[in-house]
Amino acid sequence: MRTAVYRKARFNAAHRLHNPALDADTNRELFGLCNNPNYHGHNYELIVRLAGEVDPKTGYVYDMKLLNELIEREITERFDHRNLNLDTEEFRDLNPTAENIARVIYELLRPHVDMALDLEITLYETPRNYVVYPVL
Amino acid sequence: MRTAVYRKARFNAAHRLHNPALDADTNRELFGLCNNPNYHGHNYELIVRLAGEVDPKTGYVYDMKLLNELIEREITERFDHRNLNLDTEEFRDLNPTAENIARVIYELLRPHVDMALDLEITLYETPRNYVVYPVL
Amino acid sequence: MRTAVYRKARFNAAHRLHNPALDADTNRELFGLCNNPNYHGHNYELIVRLAGEVDPKTGYVYDMKLLNELIEREITERFDHRNLNLDTEEFRDLNPTAENIARVIYELLRPHVDMALDLEITLYETPRNYVVYPVL
Amino acid sequence: MRTAVYRKARFNAAHRLHNPALDADTNRELFGLCNNPNYHGHNYELIVRLAGEVDPKTGYVYDMKLLNELIEREITERFDHRNLNLDTEEFRDLNPTAENIARVIYELLRPHVDMALDLEITLYETPRNYVVYPVL
Amino acid sequence: MRTAVYRKARFNAAHRLHNPALDADTNRELFGLCNNPNYHGHNYELIVRLAGEVDPKTGYVYDMKLLNELIEREITERFDHRNLNLDTEEFRDLNPTAENIARVIYELLRPHVDMALDLEITLYETPRNYVVYPVL
Amino acid sequence: MRTAVYRKARFNAAHRLHNPALDADTNRELFGLCNNPNYHGHNYELIVRLAGEVDPKTGYVYDMKLLNELIEREITERFDHRNLNLDTEEFRDLNPTAENIARVIYELLRPHVDMALDLEITLYETPRNYVVYPVL
Repeated sequence: MRTAVYRKARFNAAHRLHNPALDADTNRELFGLCNNPNYHGHNYELIVRLAGEVDPKTGYVYDMKLLNELIEREITERFDHRNLNLDTEEFRDLNPTAENIARVIYELLRPHVDMALDLEITLYETPRNYVVYPVL
Repeated sequence: MRTAVYRKARFNAAHRLHNPALDADTNRELFGLCNNPNYHGHNYELIVRLAGEVDPKTGYVYDMKLLNELIEREITERFDHRNLNLDTEEFRDLNPTAENIARVIYELLRPHVDMALDLEITLYETPRNYVVYPVL
Repeated sequence: MRTAVYRKARFNAAHRLHNPALDADTNRELFGLCNNPNYHGHNYELIVRLAGEVDPKTGYVYDMKLLNELIEREITERFDHRNLNLDTEEFRDLNPTAENIARVIYELLRPHVDMALDLEITLYETPRNYVVYPVL
Repeated sequence: MRTAVYRKARFNAAHRLHNPALDADTNRELFGLCNNPNYHGHNYELIVRLAGEVDPKTGYVYDMKLLNELIEREITERFDHRNLNLDTEEFRDLNPTAENIARVIYELLRPHVDMALDLEITLYETPRNYVVYPVL
Repeated sequence: MRTAVYRKARFNAAHRLHNPALDADTNRELFGLCNNPNYHGHNYELIVRLAGEVDPKTGYVYDMKLLNELIEREITERFDHRNLNLDTEEFRDLNPTAENIARVIYELLRPHVDMALDLEITLYETPRNYVVYPVL
Repeated sequence: MRTAVYRKARFNAAHRLHNPALDADTNRELFGLCNNPNYHGHNYELIVRLAGEVDPKTGYVYDMKLLNELIEREITERFDHRNLNLDTEEFRDLNPTAENIARVIYELLRPHVDMALDLEITLYETPRNYVVYPVL
């Protein structure tokens, strides 16, 4: 039987919800206040889950110190104190909804983690709204 | 791969655990203090999870504003500041355990959400006790 | 300089806001949903604070094990799984608002704690509403 | 002896730390990542405290429903889903640090609450950083 | 469809990460500060999940009072205020990582719960690091 | 009017409650399980509060980045992943109760912060037990 390990991290970012393929009125209608052209922002809380076998030598699925460093290098340094729409390549043409941010984080981390480990991303946009990706 | 979105809500209600098909002694024995005929109460915390495809137009699995409105209309207005045993049709003849409340909430919401989306209910009765329904 | 120690506890109770000195219409107008004659309820979270000198022998202001036992004996056993309006002497004729419950808890604990220690009660009625008594 | 009541609220906003009276280099040096010209953002958590006498008729220091409405009308509607620097009059020429935001919220609420009640603002910028204003 | 019930508990313990089959240098390299020969410690938070059918007589998957008693008897009394490496049989020769502690708790509880109920253990070592066992 | 700023930090440590001036029996009687000669441990949560004037140039009472660095250098590096009784000078002859740890942290930080700022320490030993020092 396998074990899952979880590590939490945080980043603070500005964003606006906006689909550049749609006109301004449709964007306003779809996204309401979240479409504010001057942006708003969030304290995003991220939980990274890795599931796999426990290494009998270490008693670890994955060293939490290394996972923390991976998250800092690939995610926090990229998104923390940034404007997701303006300052990041990933969301230049992609609407930064919580759903899309979670998938982007998954794709940024996936190449750095052994495929024998399942990877799952939980992202809180606010304490009342969050998403999980992927769901099998 | 699919994505899950979660929305939290709260309602405060009185209840007592009581199975009307059993006699008073058996109810007292089964439910102890929770069987108090004068009721006690909880701040219920509800988490509604919807899992499905992200709509490429909106970047949403489901618009959280609409999910919030649905929860308020179908659940919060029905149960908040109510006595579950006396004031609601749903628990007139059904013992309002956390397990049963979660299933009732599922059944109240299910008709209002597209069947392409999986629906799951988490209900905290206290910060130390909670339930999830359904489990596949 | 003095030190304050804090201990948290919880109790679950039913109540309704109602001033028996006023008529039904005035009660409904003042208290709205909280006046529901069939009661609603809360998971009350209580924080008891004692401030005083640290005893050089123990390094304690007050032994937390004894404070926990005091809270259980005087408060939790009295109010947990009770209907505050119907099942307690203290609120038979007193409207069980958070403000009044905090003062009652203060008065129940005060005789059991050395007057050299300041006593302060924090009571959460919900995660968003709480009160502190007394304020100097 | 007086009682204090507390009410929590939330708003999500973008901001950048920037003192318009200083040049760009000094601003970068003082505020680092928080000076990002494209903004970043936070889920601000606000706690409003009112301290005073309990009204014997209601058992309230202040009706929490009315306090909630006051906070929504004066604070949440003004700041939620806004860019504090660009979208608000209050921070057009004032650096939106947590300290300054707390003071502005105090000044916005003070005229609407009876001077017999003490008003105190707690503002969380992140779960690890917060401020209280005023301190006597 | 089945329902899952969850119960939280806590225990405070000292431990050091150390694999007795490896030499001191390798242990230091693998576990860093966590290998401190004088131990460090944690407030462990435990969540026990049981999934199964709701009993129509009680409306329960499992009586939370009984689950609480089982956790206290089998887990809290064994590990609370203990040094996991020195004071427990279970970790005399097993490295007390969160992964291994979660598996040990599973194995201690499994014989006491009907096999018709699925058992799952979540263990927080810190608010930012936690594990789940087993993962199917 | 002054403003207070707060910064949270964490450290994980082992300790035992023991007054070396008393005999073994008295220590066991006074401290019970907390006197375990093999130690137990906690995730300590620390909140440092500084109260003073807001600097009109920065809008800060104190730069949170600098406060974080001060806490890491003076407190976290000293106590994190340590055995308070064995590995620290401060508690070699001082019983490491929460009360005493809070005072020691105060004394370690006080020389590094301008006396125009009031300093206050909050220390959580568990989520249910915490202390504040000093209380005026």
